[in-house]
Amino acid sequence: MPAQQISVADPPISNPEQSQLISRINGYHRIVILTEAHTNYQYAKTAIALLRYRTADVVAVLDSTQVGRQVKDLIGQGDGIPIVSSMKELDDVDALFVGISPSGGRLPAAMQAAIREAIEAGIDVVSGLHDFLSEDVELKQLAEESGSTIIDVRKNNCREVARHATFNPQCLRIHTVGHDCSVGKMIASKEIELELIRRGIDARFLATGQTGIMIAGNGIPIDCTVSDFLNGSAEQLVLDHQHHEIVLIEGQGCITHPAYSGVTLGLLHGSAPHGLILCYEAGRETVKNLDHVPIPSLKQFVSLYETIASARHPSKIIGIAMNGRRLTPEEGELEKQKVSAELGLPVCDVFRDGAAVLADAILEFQKEAV
Amino acid sequence: MPAQQISVADPPISNPEQSQLISRINGYHRIVILTEAHTNYQYAKTAIALLRYRTADVVAVLDSTQVGRQVKDLIGQGDGIPIVSSMKELDDVDALFVGISPSGGRLPAAMQAAIREAIEAGIDVVSGLHDFLSEDVELKQLAEESGSTIIDVRKNNCREVARHATFNPQCLRIHTVGHDCSVGKMIASKEIELELIRRGIDARFLATGQTGIMIAGNGIPIDCTVSDFLNGSAEQLVLDHQHHEIVLIEGQGCITHPAYSGVTLGLLHGSAPHGLILCYEAGRETVKNLDHVPIPSLKQFVSLYETIASARHPSKIIGIAMNGRRLTPEEGELEKQKVSAELGLPVCDVFRDGAAVLADAILEFQKEAV
Repeated sequence: MPAQQISVADPPISNPEQSQLISRINGYHRIVILTEAHTNYQYAKTAIALLRYRTADVVAVLDSTQVGRQVKDLIGQGDGIPIVSSMKELDDVDALFVGISPSGGRLPAAMQAAIREAIEAGIDVVSGLHDFLSEDVELKQLAEESGSTIIDVRKNNCREVARHATFNPQCLRIHTVGHDCSVGKMIASKEIELELIRRGIDARFLATGQTGIMIAGNGIPIDCTVSDFLNGSAEQLVLDHQHHEIVLIEGQGCITHPAYSGVTLGLLHGSAPHGLILCYEAGRETVKNLDHVPIPSLKQFVSLYETIASARHPSKIIGIAMNGRRLTPEEGELEKQKVSAELGLPVCDVFRDGAAVLADAILEFQKEAV
Repeated sequence: MPAQQISVADPPISNPEQSQLISRINGYHRIVILTEAHTNYQYAKTAIALLRYRTADVVAVLDSTQVGRQVKDLIGQGDGIPIVSSMKELDDVDALFVGISPSGGRLPAAMQAAIREAIEAGIDVVSGLHDFLSEDVELKQLAEESGSTIIDVRKNNCREVARHATFNPQCLRIHTVGHDCSVGKMIASKEIELELIRRGIDARFLATGQTGIMIAGNGIPIDCTVSDFLNGSAEQLVLDHQHHEIVLIEGQGCITHPAYSGVTLGLLHGSAPHGLILCYEAGRETVKNLDHVPIPSLKQFVSLYETIASARHPSKIIGIAMNGRRLTPEEGELEKQKVSAELGLPVCDVFRDGAAVLADAILEFQKEAV
């Protein structure tokens, strides 16, 4: 149940100059997504989300190794959108978006040529990597000559120290948390926002990662803040948006993730959610990219997240977002029933079914929480 | 029971250029500590530690607002070390150390003149602030002209993603954790190291904060890494030093701290300690600088730290470091007995009594843990 939404401008966050740059992202309507040699589910998380939420803005996917194949077959989104081998095949492109989110955030060598070509042609480039393209001396020079703008969405100068702020008591804070990385926290947050908006509620998705920011044209790249300002950046994000009735704060990582648990906790404590949506992928038993690390049970996560979140503000898990990509629809139904019975919580697969079940749970919870 | 120790060189960490710069810190033996208008217990944490662990290297404290008073009366360390109003009163100074660690890491305006004066005189400047002095265009220019070197110990280019590494099973990892910031985690780690070394054990203090780095001439400024590399930087710190028999990993923040819990957890999971020393200040009931935030009980912290640490590696609290600065020695004795009975753990005040009690506990624990 994908849907388009044009984001309404919110107040700028933190560094005004960077916010202004980020806000340009909503103005692109002829986007090419670069996935060169990385057009698969494992890597192309950013591409998948752009194809799902900015479908009408995407004119092509650029991957010279996959020409002739269908985008949809490769990454499950983007029906009818062509794969091209060069920007030269297209007219009037206004931006090239780097469509991957690799661990560590480095630019794969295979993508360098296409990025340079776009910049030379005066086309803007949007990237969510830790390697800031706008700080590459050569690319910067080329961009100045051609008039291209390079937007590194992870670049930030967040310097807020969290102060355990008193939030607007009328604004319900809902946060997605996960049993691992890349299980659909961003998509769950976004789908819940869209469902609530459909019902006429003033809900707002708050992006905390590079992909979310590319979709919303707004947000904080929480994993790229300086660690001392991690909690503070999350707190500021909520303070800047708490005029909405419900905010859906995009989660990151996992509270037990060997590499990212610090980010997860900083975001959790900084945003002080009333309610949590626990996201998981059915059938995933080990941490992504770390096959030697088993994932704890959902029951353990419910206990762990509620305990640690409540150290900042009373908080509980109110629903489960099940990512059923490895399951048939029938298997998915059985899985949802099983988990719902085990945890005593509503469960849904937002990708397949939309987020109505979770929206119901949130509105019910709202009555007791705010 | 303070003691001097000349650090032995360890392998460089992460960015070799920055490590080389940091390693110069051990070579300074005529240091002035700058605490201008901030010579008190609240702010001058870095000064206190330098006066305690590098006593023989410190020639003066610089604070034009406190001339004529005794350093020891103001911050409890530094017997006989003078307070001066200008560097001009001193000969042969080799470095000016910024002696404060304010929340947010900004340079107080009152300190600017002294820093500029030192740089103009060709004296090196060592700073642990988030405001990097070496990136200030004017100071950089002055330093180039005078031959002064500016060392920002928090500057780093850590890009390690934690991979849940298998550590050397012969190396015992001990980590100090706290019920708040600034309760003595660094001092507890350092005193335990010194006590173990006195007993002939190959123990090593691993600095994770600016003050610890200024004392050790080595370490990782964990709170200034990019958040995505927080756990990874901590993991790398251990990997680089696990040829020692026991490593004492300096803790940061607190697992429930509104502003710093993300840093605390990243460090805890990245360093995967076998054993934890819980540090607290007797009589402190609210979070430092956040009087509206109560601190949970020690019992709650034992449970919370053991639960969350063990998600990465089996871990338990093996001793308590009580900071008794608000108590008389008699009150301190009663406090230690009370807490020891309540938690069933050894308790000591490392500042007053040294760390023998905790060293005993660690050596006992070593028999079962490695």
